[in-house]
Amino acid sequence: MKVYLAGPEVFLADATAVGVAKKAICRRFGVEGLYPFDQQLEGVAPQLLAATIFAANVEMIRRADAVVANLTPFRGIGADAGTVWEVGMAFGLGKPIYGYSNDPRPLFDRTATGLPRAELQALPDGRVAHPDGMAIEDFGLADNLMIEEAIASSGGAFFIPGDGTAKNLADLTLFETCLRALVARQTIDAGPGAASL
Amino acid sequence: MKVYLAGPEVFLADATAVGVAKKAICRRFGVEGLYPFDQQLEGVAPQLLAATIFAANVEMIRRADAVVANLTPFRGIGADAGTVWEVGMAFGLGKPIYGYSNDPRPLFDRTATGLPRAELQALPDGRVAHPDGMAIEDFGLADNLMIEEAIASSGGAFFIPGDGTAKNLADLTLFETCLRALVARQTIDAGPGAASL
Repeated sequence: MKVYLAGPEVFLADATAVGVAKKAICRRFGVEGLYPFDQQLEGVAPQLLAATIFAANVEMIRRADAVVANLTPFRGIGADAGTVWEVGMAFGLGKPIYGYSNDPRPLFDRTATGLPRAELQALPDGRVAHPDGMAIEDFGLADNLMIEEAIASSGGAFFIPGDGTAKNLADLTLFETCLRALVARQTIDAGPGAASL
Repeated sequence: MKVYLAGPEVFLADATAVGVAKKAICRRFGVEGLYPFDQQLEGVAPQLLAATIFAANVEMIRRADAVVANLTPFRGIGADAGTVWEVGMAFGLGKPIYGYSNDPRPLFDRTATGLPRAELQALPDGRVAHPDGMAIEDFGLADNLMIEEAIASSGGAFFIPGDGTAKNLADLTLFETCLRALVARQTIDAGPGAASL
């Protein structure tokens, strides 16, 4: 089974080392990890680099049987835009998606940080308004509803730290949890007479 | 032709009025606009509301022939996560995507605001590092590369204000530009002998 490893780790200074670590964990679960920066990029003209990275990632997502996405907030209230886009693409292709956020807080709490709920105004339709005048999504979800609902609807699962304590963006505890859930699900789907993974 | 109208306008206090305005512009171009909050939601149990909105939006995207996405930054350095997700899903389904941002600045400039380029450090691999230690994408694109590359690869187009002046998130000038481009493209595709749109 091939799994595309979406996440903002590609922006880390040690992106390649993190990719190696994620792929090693995948192997322990009998899974082949496809990491966004796998491709060799030397020799690509700078002005073609974005298109080359895009094409390589899209090809890996198409080739993957499933996606595991690190949806920990990245430079703002929500997940990395590239990762969110990839979760959307995988959903469009009908692939199971597993996701995690190392930040246990719901989107509402992150967006309204420093704004006590009692001081937030209500819009005429009952939604809670941010001081910017626009509604704050308030479904108790970790991020925009399309992301977590897509994960559930795809047959996957979404995880946050069970003890309520935020972990570093690159922490791999919940990455392992996703792989465990994915492999368990495959085993159930395959049934008692199926060959081992 | 049916076009799904993705964007953060659903969070505006007057979301429905904006939807009416966008659909009216679509009609002028001979297009049927599908606006995320079209569906009646009265009577839905609150705990099912997120799943209901998700299912309705997904159904509209599947039904659409194309997507026009408002990718103007929303509460942070980049576009609304729900809109980004929808662009990803539409790409997975092979639909043409047109997008616009009312903010003409590239992602790099927004992310590095207040951080003069000369003071930004380079990572060992040559990428520019944010003070948070992670790379800042620097392809001259408006947002994460997966978004704009997907739009180009889908056969669509992406627009920013031609005069370099940022406009309000809900400004519809570039929304019209997208529709004009989409309809022109359909006319070209249809060829000289084709029936009128």
